[in-house]
Amino acid sequence: MEIKVTADLLSKNNQLANANKGVFDEHKVFTINLMGSPGAGKTTLLERTIEKLKDRINIAVIEGDIYTAKDAQRIAEHNIPVKQINTGGACHLDALMVEKVLKDFDLDKTDLMVVENVGNLVCPVEFNVGEHAKIAVLSIIEGDDKPLKYPLIFRESEAVILNKIDLLPFCDVDFDQMKKDILSINPEINIFEISSRKGEGLDAWTDWLVAKVNQNK
Amino acid sequence: MEIKVTADLLSKNNQLANANKGVFDEHKVFTINLMGSPGAGKTTLLERTIEKLKDRINIAVIEGDIYTAKDAQRIAEHNIPVKQINTGGACHLDALMVEKVLKDFDLDKTDLMVVENVGNLVCPVEFNVGEHAKIAVLSIIEGDDKPLKYPLIFRESEAVILNKIDLLPFCDVDFDQMKKDILSINPEINIFEISSRKGEGLDAWTDWLVAKVNQNK
Repeated sequence: MEIKVTADLLSKNNQLANANKGVFDEHKVFTINLMGSPGAGKTTLLERTIEKLKDRINIAVIEGDIYTAKDAQRIAEHNIPVKQINTGGACHLDALMVEKVLKDFDLDKTDLMVVENVGNLVCPVEFNVGEHAKIAVLSIIEGDDKPLKYPLIFRESEAVILNKIDLLPFCDVDFDQMKKDILSINPEINIFEISSRKGEGLDAWTDWLVAKVNQNK
Repeated sequence: MEIKVTADLLSKNNQLANANKGVFDEHKVFTINLMGSPGAGKTTLLERTIEKLKDRINIAVIEGDIYTAKDAQRIAEHNIPVKQINTGGACHLDALMVEKVLKDFDLDKTDLMVVENVGNLVCPVEFNVGEHAKIAVLSIIEGDDKPLKYPLIFRESEAVILNKIDLLPFCDVDFDQMKKDILSINPEINIFEISSRKGEGLDAWTDWLVAKVNQNK
Protein backbone atom coordinates (compact mmCIF):
# COMPACT_ATOMS: atom_id res chain seq x y z
CA MET A 1 0.00 0.00 0.00
CA GLU A 2 2.67 2.47 1.05
CA ILE A 3 4.86 1.28 -1.82
CA LYS A 4 2.04 1.77 -4.32
CA VAL A 5 1.43 5.33 -3.12
CA THR A 6 5.14 6.07 -3.54
CA ALA A 7 5.21 4.54 -7.03
CA ASP A 8 2.18 6.65 -8.02
CA LEU A 9 3.82 9.79 -6.67
CA LEU A 10 7.05 9.09 -8.53
CA SER A 11 5.22 8.30 -11.75
CA LYS A 12 3.18 11.51 -11.53
CA ASN A 13 6.33 13.45 -10.69
CA ASN A 14 8.13 12.02 -13.72
CA GLN A 15 5.32 13.20 -16.01
CA LEU A 16 5.60 16.72 -14.64
CA ALA A 17 9.39 16.58 -14.86
CA ASN A 18 9.20 15.61 -18.52
CA ALA A 19 6.93 18.59 -19.13
CA ASN A 20 9.45 20.88 -17.41
CA LYS A 21 12.23 19.41 -19.50
CA GLY A 22 10.19 20.14 -22.60
CA VAL A 23 10.00 23.80 -21.55
CA PHE A 24 13.75 23.95 -20.92
CA ASP A 25 14.42 22.33 -24.33
CA GLU A 26 12.06 24.72 -26.11
CA HIS A 27 14.09 27.64 -24.77
CA LYS A 28 17.46 25.86 -25.07
CA VAL A 29 18.14 26.11 -21.36
CA PHE A 30 20.58 23.51 -20.00
CA THR A 31 19.38 22.57 -16.52
CA ILE A 32 21.26 20.87 -13.71
CA ASN A 33 19.95 19.50 -10.42
CA LEU A 34 22.59 20.14 -7.76
CA MET A 35 22.32 17.69 -4.88
CA GLY A 36 24.23 16.76 -1.73
CA SER A 37 24.16 16.56 2.05
CA PRO A 38 23.60 19.61 4.22
CA GLY A 39 26.93 21.38 4.34
CA ALA A 40 28.44 19.66 1.29
CA GLY A 41 29.07 23.16 -0.01
CA LYS A 42 26.51 23.39 -2.79
CA THR A 43 25.79 27.10 -2.43
CA THR A 44 29.44 28.14 -2.12
CA LEU A 45 30.30 26.04 -5.18
CA LEU A 46 27.45 27.74 -7.03
CA GLU A 47 28.69 31.20 -6.02
CA ARG A 48 32.22 30.43 -7.27
CA THR A 49 30.74 28.97 -10.49
CA ILE A 50 28.64 32.09 -11.09
CA GLU A 51 31.65 34.36 -10.50
CA LYS A 52 33.66 32.46 -13.11
CA LEU A 53 30.90 32.10 -15.72
CA LYS A 54 28.57 35.09 -15.47
CA ASP A 55 30.36 37.00 -18.23
CA ARG A 56 30.35 33.96 -20.54
CA ILE A 57 26.83 32.56 -20.16
CA ASN A 58 23.49 33.65 -18.70
CA ILE A 59 22.80 31.76 -15.48
CA ALA A 60 19.59 31.54 -13.45
CA VAL A 61 19.05 29.73 -10.17
CA ILE A 62 16.19 27.99 -8.37
CA GLU A 63 16.99 27.55 -4.69
CA GLY A 64 15.32 24.79 -2.71
CA ASP A 65 15.24 25.07 1.04
CA ILE A 66 12.91 23.82 3.73
CA TYR A 67 12.15 27.11 5.44
CA THR A 68 14.64 29.94 4.85
CA ALA A 69 15.73 32.14 1.93
CA LYS A 70 19.34 32.26 3.10
CA ASP A 71 20.81 30.62 0.00
CA ALA A 72 18.71 32.67 -2.43
CA GLN A 73 19.91 35.85 -0.70
CA ARG A 74 23.51 34.76 -1.21
CA ILE A 75 22.90 34.06 -4.90
CA ALA A 76 20.95 37.32 -5.43
CA GLU A 77 24.05 39.28 -4.41
CA HIS A 78 25.65 38.08 -7.65
CA ASN A 79 22.96 39.92 -9.64
CA ILE A 80 21.53 36.95 -11.45
CA PRO A 81 17.87 35.83 -11.55
CA VAL A 82 17.04 33.60 -8.58
CA LYS A 83 13.82 32.23 -7.10
CA GLN A 84 13.44 30.60 -3.71
CA ILE A 85 11.26 27.54 -3.19
CA ASN A 86 10.45 26.71 0.43
CA THR A 87 9.31 23.14 0.72
CA GLY A 88 7.73 23.73 4.14
CA GLY A 89 9.12 20.57 5.66
CA ALA A 90 9.55 18.36 2.61
CA CYS A 91 13.02 16.90 2.23
CA HIS A 92 13.37 17.37 -1.54
CA LEU A 93 12.19 19.47 -4.46
CA ASP A 94 9.73 17.97 -6.89
CA ALA A 95 8.75 18.79 -10.46
CA LEU A 96 5.55 20.61 -9.48
CA MET A 97 7.42 23.01 -7.19
CA VAL A 98 9.84 23.82 -10.00
CA GLU A 99 7.07 24.19 -12.60
CA LYS A 100 5.40 26.85 -10.45
CA VAL A 101 8.42 29.19 -10.52
CA LEU A 102 9.40 28.76 -14.19
CA LYS A 103 7.10 31.60 -15.28
CA ASP A 104 9.20 33.98 -13.15
CA PHE A 105 12.24 33.54 -15.42
CA ASP A 106 13.00 34.88 -18.87
CA LEU A 107 14.04 31.50 -20.25
CA ASP A 108 14.98 32.88 -23.67
CA LYS A 109 17.70 34.83 -21.90
CA THR A 110 18.90 31.84 -19.87
CA ASP A 111 21.66 29.44 -20.96
CA LEU A 112 22.08 27.52 -17.71
CA MET A 113 19.49 26.89 -14.99
CA VAL A 114 20.85 25.57 -11.73
CA VAL A 115 18.34 23.95 -9.39
CA GLU A 116 19.94 23.68 -5.95
CA ASN A 117 18.08 20.99 -4.07
CA VAL A 118 17.39 20.63 -0.33
CA GLY A 119 20.43 19.35 1.56
CA ASN A 120 19.89 15.60 1.52
CA LEU A 121 21.95 12.79 0.01
CA VAL A 122 18.97 10.44 -0.35
CA CYS A 123 15.50 11.71 -1.22
CA PRO A 124 16.13 14.34 -3.95
CA VAL A 125 17.68 11.71 -6.25
CA GLU A 126 14.33 10.01 -6.76
CA PHE A 127 12.44 13.15 -7.76
CA ASN A 128 13.38 14.47 -11.18
CA VAL A 129 12.55 18.13 -11.66
CA GLY A 130 13.14 18.27 -15.42
CA GLU A 131 16.92 18.53 -15.36
CA HIS A 132 19.29 17.43 -18.11
CA ALA A 133 21.90 16.32 -15.61
CA LYS A 134 22.12 15.55 -11.92
CA ILE A 135 25.28 16.81 -10.21
CA ALA A 136 26.36 15.42 -6.84
CA VAL A 137 28.36 17.46 -4.34
CA LEU A 138 30.18 15.49 -1.65
CA SER A 139 32.32 17.15 0.99
CA ILE A 140 35.36 14.90 1.42
CA ILE A 141 35.02 15.48 5.18
CA GLU A 142 31.84 13.38 5.11
CA GLY A 143 34.10 10.32 4.90
CA ASP A 144 35.33 7.79 2.35
CA ASP A 145 32.53 5.33 3.19
CA LYS A 146 29.79 7.57 1.78
CA PRO A 147 29.79 6.49 -1.91
CA LEU A 148 29.05 2.84 -1.05
CA LYS A 149 26.56 3.82 1.67
CA TYR A 150 24.60 6.20 -0.57
CA PRO A 151 25.19 4.76 -4.07
CA LEU A 152 22.06 6.01 -5.86
CA ILE A 153 23.13 9.66 -6.12
CA PHE A 154 26.47 8.62 -7.66
CA ARG A 155 24.80 6.18 -10.05
CA GLU A 156 22.39 8.84 -11.31
CA SER A 157 24.75 11.81 -11.53
CA GLU A 158 26.76 12.88 -14.59
CA ALA A 159 29.34 14.55 -12.41
CA VAL A 160 30.42 14.64 -8.80
CA ILE A 161 32.18 17.52 -7.11
CA LEU A 162 34.48 16.29 -4.35
CA ASN A 163 34.48 19.48 -2.34
CA LYS A 164 36.52 20.90 0.58
CA ILE A 165 39.70 19.17 -0.61
CA ASP A 166 41.68 21.83 1.32
CA LEU A 167 40.73 19.86 4.45
CA LEU A 168 42.29 16.58 3.25
CA PRO A 169 45.45 17.00 5.36
CA PHE A 170 43.35 17.36 8.51
CA CYS A 171 41.15 14.28 8.26
CA ASP A 172 41.51 10.50 7.93
CA VAL A 173 39.79 10.19 4.57
CA ASP A 174 41.21 7.70 2.05
CA PHE A 175 40.68 9.93 -0.99
CA ASP A 176 41.82 7.34 -3.55
CA GLN A 177 39.40 4.79 -2.13
CA MET A 178 36.58 7.35 -2.22
CA LYS A 179 37.18 8.00 -5.93
CA LYS A 180 37.61 4.30 -6.69
CA ASP A 181 34.30 3.50 -5.01
CA ILE A 182 32.49 6.26 -6.92
CA LEU A 183 33.85 4.90 -10.21
CA SER A 184 32.87 1.35 -9.24
CA ILE A 185 29.28 2.60 -8.90
CA ASN A 186 29.36 4.73 -12.06
CA PRO A 187 32.36 4.32 -14.39
CA GLU A 188 31.09 7.16 -16.63
CA ILE A 189 30.88 9.83 -13.93
CA ASN A 190 33.04 12.95 -14.18
CA ILE A 191 34.92 13.66 -10.96
CA PHE A 192 36.00 17.20 -10.11
CA GLU A 193 38.23 17.85 -7.09
CA ILE A 194 37.51 21.29 -5.73
CA SER A 195 37.95 23.61 -2.79
CA SER A 196 35.21 26.19 -3.28
CA ARG A 197 36.48 28.09 -0.25
CA LYS A 198 40.01 28.40 -1.63
CA GLY A 199 38.87 28.64 -5.27
CA GLU A 200 40.91 25.59 -6.26
CA GLY A 201 40.08 23.16 -9.07
CA LEU A 202 37.18 25.20 -10.47
CA ASP A 203 38.36 25.51 -14.09
CA ALA A 204 37.89 21.87 -15.08
CA TRP A 205 34.36 21.96 -13.65
CA THR A 206 33.29 25.24 -15.24
CA ASP A 207 34.81 24.26 -18.61
CA TRP A 208 32.87 20.99 -18.53
CA LEU A 209 29.69 22.88 -17.65
CA VAL A 210 30.12 25.44 -20.45
CA ALA A 211 30.73 22.61 -22.93
CA LYS A 212 27.45 21.02 -21.81
CA VAL A 213 25.62 24.34 -22.20
CA ASN A 214 27.06 24.83 -25.69
CA GLN A 215 26.14 21.29 -26.77
CA ASN A 216 22.57 22.15 -25.82
CA LYS A 217 22.31 25.15 -28.18
CA MET B 1 -4.32 13.59 -0.70
CA GLU B 2 -0.57 13.30 -0.38
CA ILE B 3 -0.72 15.17 2.93
CA LYS B 4 -3.41 12.86 4.29
CA VAL B 5 -1.36 9.78 3.39
CA THR B 6 1.63 11.26 5.21
CA ALA B 7 -0.46 12.12 8.26
CA ASP B 8 -1.83 8.56 8.36
CA LEU B 9 1.67 7.12 8.06
CA LEU B 10 2.97 9.32 10.87
CA SER B 11 0.00 8.50 13.08
CA LYS B 12 0.42 4.75 12.54
CA ASN B 13 4.14 5.08 13.13
CA ASN B 14 3.56 6.93 16.40
CA GLN B 15 1.34 4.09 17.66
CA LEU B 16 4.07 1.54 16.91
CA ALA B 17 6.69 3.81 18.45
CA ASN B 18 4.68 4.04 21.66
CA ALA B 19 4.50 0.25 21.76
CA ASN B 20 8.28 0.04 21.34
CA LYS B 21 8.73 2.58 24.11
CA GLY B 22 6.53 0.44 26.33
CA VAL B 23 8.87 -2.51 25.72
CA PHE B 24 11.94 -0.42 26.52
CA ASP B 25 10.28 0.88 29.72
CA GLU B 26 9.27 -2.61 30.80
CA HIS B 27 12.93 -3.68 30.63
CA LYS B 28 14.28 -0.33 31.91
CA VAL B 29 16.26 0.29 28.74
CA PHE B 30 17.06 3.95 28.06
CA THR B 31 16.89 4.46 24.30
CA ILE B 32 18.31 7.25 22.18
CA ASN B 33 17.74 8.01 18.50
CA LEU B 34 21.01 9.31 17.05
CA MET B 35 20.45 11.49 14.01
CA GLY B 36 22.44 13.72 11.67
CA SER B 37 23.65 14.30 8.11
CA PRO B 38 25.76 11.75 6.26
CA GLY B 39 29.27 12.23 7.56
CA ALA B 40 28.30 14.13 10.72
CA GLY B 41 30.30 11.50 12.58
CA LYS B 42 27.54 9.51 14.27
CA THR B 43 29.27 6.13 14.10
CA THR B 44 32.66 7.40 15.24
CA LEU B 45 31.00 9.23 18.14
CA LEU B 46 29.21 6.01 19.03
CA GLU B 47 32.47 4.03 18.94
CA ARG B 48 34.18 6.52 21.28
CA THR B 49 31.09 6.48 23.54
CA ILE B 50 31.12 2.67 23.71
CA GLU B 51 34.84 2.61 24.53
CA LYS B 52 34.29 5.00 27.43
CA LEU B 53 31.12 3.41 28.81
CA LYS B 54 31.20 -0.32 28.09
CA ASP B 55 32.63 -1.17 31.52
CA ARG B 56 30.05 1.01 33.29
CA ILE B 57 26.79 0.17 31.50
CA ASN B 58 25.47 -2.44 29.08
CA ILE B 59 25.04 -0.93 25.64
CA ALA B 60 23.28 -2.35 22.58
CA VAL B 61 23.02 -0.80 19.15
CA ILE B 62 20.56 -0.81 16.25
CA GLU B 63 22.22 0.45 13.08
CA GLY B 64 20.12 2.00 10.34
CA ASP B 65 21.56 2.17 6.85
CA ILE B 66 20.09 2.18 3.37
CA TYR B 67 22.04 -0.73 1.90
CA THR B 68 25.26 -1.68 3.68
CA ALA B 69 26.28 -3.19 7.02
CA LYS B 70 29.44 -1.08 7.25
CA ASP B 71 28.47 0.72 10.46
CA ALA B 72 27.24 -2.44 12.20
CA GLN B 73 30.56 -4.12 11.40
CA ARG B 74 32.42 -1.24 13.03
CA ILE B 75 30.23 -1.46 16.14
CA ALA B 76 30.47 -5.28 16.33
CA GLU B 77 34.24 -4.98 16.74
CA HIS B 78 33.56 -3.48 20.16
CA ASN B 79 31.92 -6.74 21.25
CA ILE B 80 28.51 -5.38 22.07
CA PRO B 81 25.15 -6.57 20.72
CA VAL B 82 24.32 -4.91 17.41
CA LYS B 83 21.70 -5.44 14.71
CA GLN B 84 21.70 -3.94 11.25
CA ILE B 85 18.54 -2.63 9.63
CA ASN B 86 18.76 -1.99 5.89
CA THR B 87 15.97 0.31 4.79
CA GLY B 88 16.39 -0.68 1.12
CA GLY B 89 16.16 2.87 -0.16
CA ALA B 90 14.10 4.53 2.56
CA CYS B 91 15.69 7.66 3.99
CA HIS B 92 14.87 7.04 7.67
CA LEU B 93 14.15 4.30 10.18
CA ASP B 94 10.60 3.82 11.38
CA ALA B 95 9.06 2.16 14.42
CA LEU B 96 8.11 -1.03 12.56
CA MET B 97 11.68 -1.64 11.41
CA VAL B 98 12.92 -1.24 14.98
CA GLU B 99 10.15 -3.42 16.43
CA LYS B 100 11.22 -6.29 14.15
CA VAL B 101 14.74 -6.48 15.57
CA LEU B 102 13.90 -6.00 19.27
CA LYS B 103 13.44 -9.76 19.79
CA ASP B 104 17.13 -10.22 18.85
CA PHE B 105 18.29 -8.40 21.99
CA ASP B 106 18.38 -9.47 25.64
CA LEU B 107 16.72 -6.30 26.87
CA ASP B 108 16.97 -7.29 30.53
CA LYS B 109 20.73 -7.10 30.10
CA THR B 110 20.62 -3.75 28.32
CA ASP B 111 20.90 -0.36 30.03
CA LEU B 112 21.28 1.82 26.96
CA MET B 113 19.98 1.18 23.44
CA VAL B 114 21.41 3.43 20.75
CA VAL B 115 19.47 3.59 17.50
CA GLU B 116 21.73 5.13 14.86
CA ASN B 117 19.51 6.48 12.13
CA VAL B 118 20.14 6.83 8.38
CA GLY B 119 22.32 9.83 7.57
CA ASN B 120 19.77 12.57 6.97
CA LEU B 121 19.13 15.86 8.77
CA VAL B 122 15.47 16.02 7.76
CA CYS B 123 13.32 12.89 7.47
CA PRO B 124 14.30 10.79 10.53
CA VAL B 125 13.11 13.54 12.90
CA GLU B 126 9.49 12.94 11.97
CA PHE B 127 9.54 9.19 12.58
CA ASN B 128 9.75 8.24 16.24
CA VAL B 129 11.06 4.74 16.82
CA GLY B 130 10.21 4.51 20.54
CA GLU B 131 13.18 6.48 21.86
CA HIS B 132 13.32 8.39 25.13
CA ALA B 133 15.50 11.08 23.63
CA LYS B 134 16.54 12.28 20.21
CA ILE B 135 20.21 13.27 19.91
CA ALA B 136 21.42 15.42 17.00
CA VAL B 137 24.96 15.20 15.66
CA LEU B 138 26.15 18.16 13.60
CA SER B 139 29.62 18.35 12.12
CA ILE B 140 30.72 21.97 12.53
CA ILE B 141 32.17 21.76 9.01
CA GLU B 142 28.60 21.64 7.69
CA GLY B 143 28.45 25.38 8.35
CA ASP B 144 26.99 27.84 10.85
CA ASP B 145 23.82 28.34 8.77
CA LYS B 146 22.58 24.79 9.34
CA PRO B 147 20.63 25.22 12.62
CA LEU B 148 18.29 27.86 11.14
CA LYS B 149 18.00 25.97 7.84
CA TYR B 150 17.12 22.64 9.49
CA PRO B 151 15.47 23.73 12.76
CA LEU B 152 13.24 20.72 13.44
CA ILE B 153 16.01 18.35 14.50
CA PHE B 154 17.32 20.89 17.01
CA ARG B 155 13.84 21.65 18.32
CA GLU B 156 13.12 17.97 18.94
CA SER B 157 16.47 16.86 20.35
CA GLU B 158 17.47 16.77 24.02
CA ALA B 159 21.12 17.15 23.15
CA VAL B 160 23.26 18.13 20.20
CA ILE B 161 26.82 17.01 19.60
CA LEU B 162 28.81 19.65 17.74
CA ASN B 163 31.35 17.30 16.25
CA LYS B 164 34.72 17.66 14.45
CA ILE B 165 35.66 20.74 16.49
CA ASP B 166 39.31 19.94 15.73
CA LEU B 167 38.62 21.37 12.25
CA LEU B 168 37.46 24.79 13.56
CA PRO B 169 40.80 26.49 12.78
CA PHE B 170 40.59 25.37 9.15
CA CYS B 171 37.12 26.60 8.23
CA ASP B 172 35.10 29.85 8.22
CA VAL B 173 32.43 28.71 10.67
CA ASP B 174 31.15 31.24 13.23
CA PHE B 175 30.95 28.76 16.10
CA ASP B 176 29.38 31.21 18.59
CA GLN B 177 26.64 32.07 16.09
CA MET B 178 26.00 28.37 15.47
CA LYS B 179 25.49 27.73 19.19
CA LYS B 180 23.41 30.90 19.63
CA ASP B 181 21.11 29.85 16.77
CA ILE B 182 20.68 26.35 18.21
CA LEU B 183 19.71 27.82 21.59
CA SER B 184 17.31 30.26 19.91
CA ILE B 185 15.50 27.23 18.45
CA ASN B 186 15.64 25.18 21.65
CA PRO B 187 16.78 26.95 24.84
CA GLU B 188 16.67 23.65 26.80
CA ILE B 189 19.00 21.69 24.53
CA ASN B 190 22.28 20.35 25.92
CA ILE B 191 25.23 21.24 23.70
CA PHE B 192 28.37 19.08 23.70
CA GLU B 193 31.47 20.19 21.79
CA ILE B 194 33.41 17.15 20.69
CA SER B 195 36.12 15.88 18.40
CA SER B 196 35.40 12.16 18.17
CA ARG B 197 38.51 11.71 16.04
CA LYS B 198 40.79 13.32 18.64
CA GLY B 199 38.79 12.02 21.61
CA GLU B 200 38.17 15.54 22.91
CA GLY B 201 35.16 16.69 24.93
CA LEU B 202 33.68 13.23 25.41
CA ASP B 203 33.44 13.21 29.22
CA ALA B 204 30.65 15.78 29.54
CA TRP B 205 28.61 13.86 26.95
CA THR B 206 29.13 10.39 28.43
CA ASP B 207 28.48 11.66 31.99
CA TRP B 208 25.20 13.21 30.82
CA LEU B 209 24.26 9.97 29.09
CA VAL B 210 25.03 7.81 32.13
CA ALA B 211 22.97 10.15 34.32
CA LYS B 212 20.04 9.69 31.92
CA VAL B 213 20.47 5.91 32.01
CA ASN B 214 20.53 5.92 35.81
CA GLN B 215 17.44 8.14 36.07
CA ASN B 216 15.65 5.52 34.00
CA LYS B 217 16.32 2.68 36.46
